[in-house]
Amino acid sequence: MNDTHAVIAGWPRPLDVQALPAPRHHARIRVYYEDTDAGGIVYHANYLRFFERVRSDWLRALGAVHRELSQSLGLGFVVRDMAIDFRQPARLDDLVDVDVRVLETKRATMRLAQVAALADGTVLCAAAMRVAAIRLTDGRPVAFPLWLVERILTD
Amino acid sequence: MNDTHAVIAGWPRPLDVQALPAPRHHARIRVYYEDTDAGGIVYHANYLRFFERVRSDWLRALGAVHRELSQSLGLGFVVRDMAIDFRQPARLDDLVDVDVRVLETKRATMRLAQVAALADGTVLCAAAMRVAAIRLTDGRPVAFPLWLVERILTD
Amino acid sequence: MNDTHAVIAGWPRPLDVQALPAPRHHARIRVYYEDTDAGGIVYHANYLRFFERVRSDWLRALGAVHRELSQSLGLGFVVRDMAIDFRQPARLDDLVDVDVRVLETKRATMRLAQVAALADGTVLCAAAMRVAAIRLTDGRPVAFPLWLVERILTD
Amino acid sequence: MNDTHAVIAGWPRPLDVQALPAPRHHARIRVYYEDTDAGGIVYHANYLRFFERVRSDWLRALGAVHRELSQSLGLGFVVRDMAIDFRQPARLDDLVDVDVRVLETKRATMRLAQVAALADGTVLCAAAMRVAAIRLTDGRPVAFPLWLVERILTD
Repeated sequence: MNDTHAVIAGWPRPLDVQALPAPRHHARIRVYYEDTDAGGIVYHANYLRFFERVRSDWLRALGAVHRELSQSLGLGFVVRDMAIDFRQPARLDDLVDVDVRVLETKRATMRLAQVAALADGTVLCAAAMRVAAIRLTDGRPVAFPLWLVERILTD
Repeated sequence: MNDTHAVIAGWPRPLDVQALPAPRHHARIRVYYEDTDAGGIVYHANYLRFFERVRSDWLRALGAVHRELSQSLGLGFVVRDMAIDFRQPARLDDLVDVDVRVLETKRATMRLAQVAALADGTVLCAAAMRVAAIRLTDGRPVAFPLWLVERILTD
Repeated sequence: MNDTHAVIAGWPRPLDVQALPAPRHHARIRVYYEDTDAGGIVYHANYLRFFERVRSDWLRALGAVHRELSQSLGLGFVVRDMAIDFRQPARLDDLVDVDVRVLETKRATMRLAQVAALADGTVLCAAAMRVAAIRLTDGRPVAFPLWLVERILTD
Repeated sequence: MNDTHAVIAGWPRPLDVQALPAPRHHARIRVYYEDTDAGGIVYHANYLRFFERVRSDWLRALGAVHRELSQSLGLGFVVRDMAIDFRQPARLDDLVDVDVRVLETKRATMRLAQVAALADGTVLCAAAMRVAAIRLTDGRPVAFPLWLVERILTD
């Protein structure tokens, strides 16, 4: 059907984790009761929370602290779009390794990939996303601070 | 770069909301403090919670109640993958219309699209996803109940 | 032991639901996967989200909309303290009735009670709390708008 | 008024943090966007998530891992009641120290206190709570494993 076809053109193909660039940053995240649901597994939306934690840690390590950027430059980061594969479920008490990989860095957007995996390498969840900078007062897109782009490009 | 190219092949193109099939179900969801973040807008992961609420309501209206399916058939639903565009932010107190649209129904997976919009038609967020049925004891894929597939196809 | 005694003096005794004033407002809240945890029940912290939704709806019905108060008066509401009894667990798909009851209204704080119950009257959770108004720029306590106090006292 | 009086009898007095027993365990918890709300501060219900993370870590350090207790003994932990003071707000990027203190240990319930504070000692939030063990199949109260009670008493 034509209608369906137009949509499926944008369908996320499985992200090829092997082909991704190396991680820039990663963290171990413990699964607590708050993260699970009545199916006994991590609630799917919570992987986005895990990913955001690690992006924030990575940016902080590069010198880009959310609260400082917000107060000094009136600047915030937003996710523009995301493709996400939920492959295997994590469970209560699991220790999940979550990373950040840089696909592309431009003036006002970057493309990142993030992988959540168990210690034995089992991939739980993989995502690719576009992150942009906005002016917090009106949500308009703005450029990243130049020093941040340089730090990411040379890291 | 080859590595990046392999990933970007699966990049979600903007979902063409105009081309989507008509909604099967929708609900109005109020934005509360719990849904917002320090940027003053709905935290991006929370659209996945909104979408899941409306999928659950739609399935319940079709006779597929999560707890009953779990207890009688040991069956649960999981999201396999999702492509999601975050277009405009919702804010505290907004009333968001969230719908469900059926792209494709098969024995053990269905493809759905969901759109979140304000009353004036502004699209906040649009997603396409693949939902599957699993056996809750071991997470193995299983077929949907036949009556459910028929109800979806003939609804 | 003296140390322990000093703390236990403030221990919340079971809230006597029968003795509470009548509800001023209530809403039915559906339990979705997002609300549950791996124990198969509603995660305890989520009752605070349910309570806050119904307080917001009640205040909105009285004319006090969070975003308007924030923009026009720079005023927000915060919970100062809470005593909460978790009596029975709610489960996936339950429809929970959540109410708001007014214990005391003063210039800059109000004492409220809230009860979450199933349709058959089973009390799931009961809480008493003190809510205050603050100036959002610096978090300093301020008086509620006089018209709001009057509306609550005469409602 | 009599009705109100009966309720206010159980009103939580400010927890005297100075009088609490020493912490048994603590952890540093970073505040991410997911934890904040449109008021720019940590959403009040999220302190309960922070507290639960640290209780889980403490129990894990004592040998009581949720998933193991659930699978081997069909046993889970629930919060029965809680008194909580929200004193100062935490903000995005804050690093919050959260602890666990033991007030009383009995066969089937324990009374704990938990304090969340900034590095400079500012108390953000303090809570006292009763935690019980339940049989997961029917929610009935059961005794804690004896070795766990002994470990807590002798720790």
